[in-house]
Amino acid sequence: MRAKIEVFLKEGVLDPQGETIKRALYTLGYSSIKDVRQGKVFYIELKDKNPQGILEEIARKVLANPVIEDFRWEVER
Amino acid sequence: MRAKIEVFLKEGVLDPQGETIKRALYTLGYSSIKDVRQGKVFYIELKDKNPQGILEEIARKVLANPVIEDFRWEVER
Repeated sequence: MRAKIEVFLKEGVLDPQGETIKRALYTLGYSSIKDVRQGKVFYIELKDKNPQGILEEIARKVLANPVIEDFRWEVER
Repeated sequence: MRAKIEVFLKEGVLDPQGETIKRALYTLGYSSIKDVRQGKVFYIELKDKNPQGILEEIARKVLANPVIEDFRWEVER
């Protein structure tokens, strides 16, 4: 079974990487871009039939830093 | 308008980060995890009404390295 966990900075947390990309895009002429924020995504292949609990746990305990990051996960197939 | 671009390594390209996470999870007792691959996700806020073309272009030219990476994008709202 395939799943995906996205980890992204909470609203209000400064994102220098995203800021840099936004400025670079502006310099390249993409002036309609108002904001860019960068996150991480993990594609996970696992054997569980009901991976909801394990995904939630992995995201919370291992992949995200709950002080500054939020996460969401979905099962792909 | 909000959009999301995911950039991930092509199949067959070695992913040491994902490999390390997989091993860490195994050590922590999550033995049902068969594979982990890590990618990047960009959350983009933009003014265009029809951002399809611009998203495709930004992803191809700026955010992804087409030699080793693929990408997909979606408009969120």
